[in-house]
Amino acid sequence: MKIQVETKGHYDFVDLTKRINNIVKKSGVEDGMVFLFVRGSTAVLTTMEYESGLLEDLKQVFEGIAPESADYRHHLRWGDKNGAAHIKSAFIGPDLAIPIEKGKMQLGTWQQIVLVDFDERPRTREIIVKIGNLTGF
Amino acid sequence: MKIQVETKGHYDFVDLTKRINNIVKKSGVEDGMVFLFVRGSTAVLTTMEYESGLLEDLKQVFEGIAPESADYRHHLRWGDKNGAAHIKSAFIGPDLAIPIEKGKMQLGTWQQIVLVDFDERPRTREIIVKIGNLTGF
Amino acid sequence: MKIQVETKGHYDFVDLTKRINNIVKKSGVEDGMVFLFVRGSTAVLTTMEYESGLLEDLKQVFEGIAPESADYRHHLRWGDKNGAAHIKSAFIGPDLAIPIEKGKMQLGTWQQIVLVDFDERPRTREIIVKIGNLTGF
Repeated sequence: MKIQVETKGHYDFVDLTKRINNIVKKSGVEDGMVFLFVRGSTAVLTTMEYESGLLEDLKQVFEGIAPESADYRHHLRWGDKNGAAHIKSAFIGPDLAIPIEKGKMQLGTWQQIVLVDFDERPRTREIIVKIGNLTGF
Repeated sequence: MKIQVETKGHYDFVDLTKRINNIVKKSGVEDGMVFLFVRGSTAVLTTMEYESGLLEDLKQVFEGIAPESADYRHHLRWGDKNGAAHIKSAFIGPDLAIPIEKGKMQLGTWQQIVLVDFDERPRTREIIVKIGNLTGF
Repeated sequence: MKIQVETKGHYDFVDLTKRINNIVKKSGVEDGMVFLFVRGSTAVLTTMEYESGLLEDLKQVFEGIAPESADYRHHLRWGDKNGAAHIKSAFIGPDLAIPIEKGKMQLGTWQQIVLVDFDERPRTREIIVKIGNLTGF
């Protein structure tokens, strides 16, 4: 199954928890795993507390590691300017796997599923959602 | 299935390999995957060589990226001081998936399953363990 | 199932996409997940655009976080010099999970499966490949 998200880039943080919750509920799976994957190499999936101050903090630390405005060799290849986005995405990764028990994702209270789009322009992102039934363990 | 771990925070590294090994053994699964997930947004799961010098090295590099003592906007929200813990956790992630063959997790010789608690205070951590039977591939 | 890769260390990036594609095709799985895991604590799996300029950019940013030539406490333990490799591997992680739909891995156009070997010497790496059939969701 696929969901689509319109993103703005430049550290666009999108909380997907509700949408994934609804998909898990509809699946009817009581005990298992939900596997998420964002297509592309300039966005990632992770979990975090979706709180505006923290999103600013994260942006600042990310800028310290690979600033958007720096020159990257990757820019010579295609003429685009998203080298920093590629680097940060390779660090964090596109995949996320969350357990389901009694029909509910087992996230912590302050733990949301977040798509981070590091790219330099608006994108339509596709997130693949797979649910596995692992009853019995 | 859930396991609980008491942690001290401030870069508490806990080796979970033995406990997970026992769960895999009891499951009887010969060929499959074990999926691990830590609830919460200030701790992570990863693999590493559990060696005291390396744990110190990791702590130092982590401090270089997001120092515990720095000011974070997140602190303005709740009055707590764990902004650095949130940042590092969003980088590394809460999930880990390890293959099982012939009834055994396929870790390298020096590769342990480690919970890192970045929080600023003791916590009781819950790790969800799911085992999937993937025989035949 | 296992595949083996000969690596050279010092940021050796190996594109595994074709090999994994072939394994997925042979499995006959139309709808499911492929789970990848690299054994060892000085190499990782992630996705990225496999482009030579970007690989150089990544190397430079990684060196900024944990330089190969720095002194690490881990070196006192075994007399080897791969502390930086351990640190970077614990950050990124050994596992990767990619969805399969209509018999094909759902990677983005510029998104390759890449093994990064951070070690200081040539290694024979083992990557475990597990494929799960998750039809129906």
